[in-house]
Amino acid sequence: MNTQFLEKIKFNADGLVPAIVQDVNTKRVLMMAWMNQDSIIATLETGKTNFWSRSRKKYWIKGETSGHTQTVKKFAIDCDGDTLLFEVEQTGGACHTGYMSCFYQEVSLGGEVRPVNELRIFDPEKTYSPS
Amino acid sequence: MNTQFLEKIKFNADGLVPAIVQDVNTKRVLMMAWMNQDSIIATLETGKTNFWSRSRKKYWIKGETSGHTQTVKKFAIDCDGDTLLFEVEQTGGACHTGYMSCFYQEVSLGGEVRPVNELRIFDPEKTYSPS
Repeated sequence: MNTQFLEKIKFNADGLVPAIVQDVNTKRVLMMAWMNQDSIIATLETGKTNFWSRSRKKYWIKGETSGHTQTVKKFAIDCDGDTLLFEVEQTGGACHTGYMSCFYQEVSLGGEVRPVNELRIFDPEKTYSPS
Repeated sequence: MNTQFLEKIKFNADGLVPAIVQDVNTKRVLMMAWMNQDSIIATLETGKTNFWSRSRKKYWIKGETSGHTQTVKKFAIDCDGDTLLFEVEQTGGACHTGYMSCFYQEVSLGGEVRPVNELRIFDPEKTYSPS
């Protein structure tokens, strides 16, 4: 793999860059997570999104527990090199709470937290519990 | 305005949260920038996106120089409360380089930086220079 594109990326002081993940078909924004250099390379090499967990200080393959992987179809870097965008084919749902997207909680422009207007597409208790 | 929704937002150690901005019509992701509590409230009160510039340490209204404002149509908070998503009607282009979106630079899955596959929709020199 040609890794020259890494020179365009501005990692923060912790060596991380935010990555937005969007559904390539519906264009819905599914999630935002953080990548380090190794997880970007692993994402391109495997074709599946890989991230760095800031809370667990651990590298993770999206879907390694749930099977809800993301197959990368497009990759772009923003003008400042400080944000990445991946368009993916999502297997199952992207959110660990069971929703398709992590952005299921709408707020009105008046600041009212809206009732969630969609159904979970999987049961997180069944998906993440050892059988 | 009801500001209870602010309790759902987890600001980082600098009091900031990343905000993804997506075109409400085309669903294209336009940019990612940072907001503090004041810029979130100003965004909802004015209906136009407001951000916090980390480099300039300054509050800014998107489009205050260029006229390329973003009118907010939808607002959502993610499952962890640490990322915001705004769907907007974009006047002109979102990127200060003249492109519609900041994510005009595609990279192939083999790591090749692709030629830019779209035209600028405005001339940044004319837009940002004093007349």
